[in-house]
Amino acid sequence: MTVTADVAIVGGGVIGTAIAWRAAAAGLDVVLVDPQRDDGASLVAAGMLAPVSESIFGEEALLRLNLLAARRFPTFAAELEEHTGQHIGLRQEGTLAVAYDPGDHAALLRLTEFRRSVGLDAAELDSRAIRQLEPFLTPDVRGGALFAGDWSVDNRRYLAALRQAAQAAGVRTVPGQVTRVTSTGGQLTGAELADGTAISCGTVVVAAGWGSAGIAGLPGRLADVVRPVKGQLLRLRLPAAMPPVLSHSVRAVVRGTDVYLVPRADGELVVGATQEERGPDRTVTAGAVHDLLRDALSVLPVLSELVLAETCAGLRPGTLDNGPLAGPAGAGLLLATGHYRNGILLSAVTADAAVAWLAGQPPAAEWAPFTPDRFLAPGWPTEPRPA
Amino acid sequence: MTVTADVAIVGGGVIGTAIAWRAAAAGLDVVLVDPQRDDGASLVAAGMLAPVSESIFGEEALLRLNLLAARRFPTFAAELEEHTGQHIGLRQEGTLAVAYDPGDHAALLRLTEFRRSVGLDAAELDSRAIRQLEPFLTPDVRGGALFAGDWSVDNRRYLAALRQAAQAAGVRTVPGQVTRVTSTGGQLTGAELADGTAISCGTVVVAAGWGSAGIAGLPGRLADVVRPVKGQLLRLRLPAAMPPVLSHSVRAVVRGTDVYLVPRADGELVVGATQEERGPDRTVTAGAVHDLLRDALSVLPVLSELVLAETCAGLRPGTLDNGPLAGPAGAGLLLATGHYRNGILLSAVTADAAVAWLAGQPPAAEWAPFTPDRFLAPGWPTEPRPA
Repeated sequence: MTVTADVAIVGGGVIGTAIAWRAAAAGLDVVLVDPQRDDGASLVAAGMLAPVSESIFGEEALLRLNLLAARRFPTFAAELEEHTGQHIGLRQEGTLAVAYDPGDHAALLRLTEFRRSVGLDAAELDSRAIRQLEPFLTPDVRGGALFAGDWSVDNRRYLAALRQAAQAAGVRTVPGQVTRVTSTGGQLTGAELADGTAISCGTVVVAAGWGSAGIAGLPGRLADVVRPVKGQLLRLRLPAAMPPVLSHSVRAVVRGTDVYLVPRADGELVVGATQEERGPDRTVTAGAVHDLLRDALSVLPVLSELVLAETCAGLRPGTLDNGPLAGPAGAGLLLATGHYRNGILLSAVTADAAVAWLAGQPPAAEWAPFTPDRFLAPGWPTEPRPA
Repeated sequence: MTVTADVAIVGGGVIGTAIAWRAAAAGLDVVLVDPQRDDGASLVAAGMLAPVSESIFGEEALLRLNLLAARRFPTFAAELEEHTGQHIGLRQEGTLAVAYDPGDHAALLRLTEFRRSVGLDAAELDSRAIRQLEPFLTPDVRGGALFAGDWSVDNRRYLAALRQAAQAAGVRTVPGQVTRVTSTGGQLTGAELADGTAISCGTVVVAAGWGSAGIAGLPGRLADVVRPVKGQLLRLRLPAAMPPVLSHSVRAVVRGTDVYLVPRADGELVVGATQEERGPDRTVTAGAVHDLLRDALSVLPVLSELVLAETCAGLRPGTLDNGPLAGPAGAGLLLATGHYRNGILLSAVTADAAVAWLAGQPPAAEWAPFTPDRFLAPGWPTEPRPA
């Protein structure tokens, strides 16, 4: 069977689905190839929109892109909610960063100072002020900061709404796994699925997260550039009749380790996340669940009464410089992968940029440092490296 | 719809199903009413057969019953395996009790001394001998004991095999929930299900665990005598290519708290269990999972690498004296509930006793202290107390 389209998008996470929606809304005939797995990075994520608390020394270009993304997200979300009638749980209370012991506090103060030095909204708070904002946090918390510009969204509701919007805009979804892209004379012409389905199209958009590295026929070195970074998370729920225990997202440094707690209006509380370099391993381990619970309980003792509803593990698409890999990578090929820890945040501006690229127009200037040519020489077909 | 039978058994856990199998094998026409829930105490259990390490001061009658049960279990299991062709994972390596800190060690030594004083096989071991038996245990373990008479079985395989044997012996299973038993003139005549099905029979055997207390029409005070004692457990799995980390069941006392680790031949490792007086609450809580992992990791650090495959919670049927409630409780009524922490262990001898009672014969003498009349005045119908 052969499917034809203007654009074939590979990957049904928030990046691929957001691009599909916006490209179809811009008038293109779009096919979305979606493996429909329930442990994709978009579904495992916590949904933080955190340009400020993800910013670290030396990643100023990524910070500028993330800030663009945060400015864009609310209008994109509002349009999505209007198109679909769904609520996606955008919360703009800000994020509270807290430190557990004196060493944690010193480290957090240094980061807060850096964030202020680059113009970010980062208000230092003492222990008393923190507990006024979040009374259930332990009195042991040494101090912290409020990052008003860091928000969150319910990533699962968000992806579900994107899928609905894409379908309503005319996107055709093909369930399955792309195994290779096809080309003729230096021009990419389509893709092949594991079940034998062929797709014939003018442009292939590769937005398959870490899985992008396993697609044959792409420019060489992609498997050297995009790697899986395992993250384990917990989804907790308030038991019946318990009022919310947090109103802000909380990022805690506990004895040198980072843990975050992201509350939802529906009573869910997401606790994450590990950062593990273990290749494509997706198992939930006893040690990770213990450590996440231990650190979360250290700052929020009442968490012991919450229901542990789900443990999950996903693979973020990490890159050599922690920035995404987005833009044209040869005739008929657009890459949109490598979003690492910022995939939910970057999804809206990645869709904007992809629509621009598909129309032959330049995207926002913040994308310039993140084009594929910083790592990849153009030209194919080539085979990916064996894993 | 009305179903008729010689005997109607209420409850599809190991107690009810073992009775059903043996009663049908003895020639009775048996109906088994099974709510078929996946969180029944028989499925949540770890499968320990632990007369020795469950024995405590003051429960000598229960110890005698548990020892009878342990002697009986292997022949019962062998017959079950022969009838069904299933392996149920009986392991007879013995159980290693270990103590984490000096206070734990003192407590364990006192219990070991008691167990020896009543004639049980309880060999004290020092830290070095323990690690020769189980090299992955932490060198911090202070000492312990080997209880050669404490074994384990894969409780889920065991229940599955019992169901198969019962069916092969002619037991008819009716899915559903018994809401009341019915009687005429002081003689019990049957039962009614939530879906309206009526059962007409000569004897009703109530083996519904804690749920027995919610059945209307039973002798008064049952709801005062049988209560739910919540237990939370974890099921871990060895990751691919990891060899077994334990060969014995291990019961550890860690800073005053008991935790057990029960290995299976197929790579499963069960970690349990909490003892919570919370009424009929079956939620898995963050605090319990944390505490179980913390204590298990304290004695077996390599456990951090194991896959956390499942978290579960069940309700044991506890009684006022921790012993079962088994035997005739009026014309046409047999009780077989209240097995608390020893349901798997006691299932075989409960089936033996039930078959004897159904035939009007006396069971083993060890049952004498556990008849219903120690708590319940005969006579019905009465209503259970509101929960």
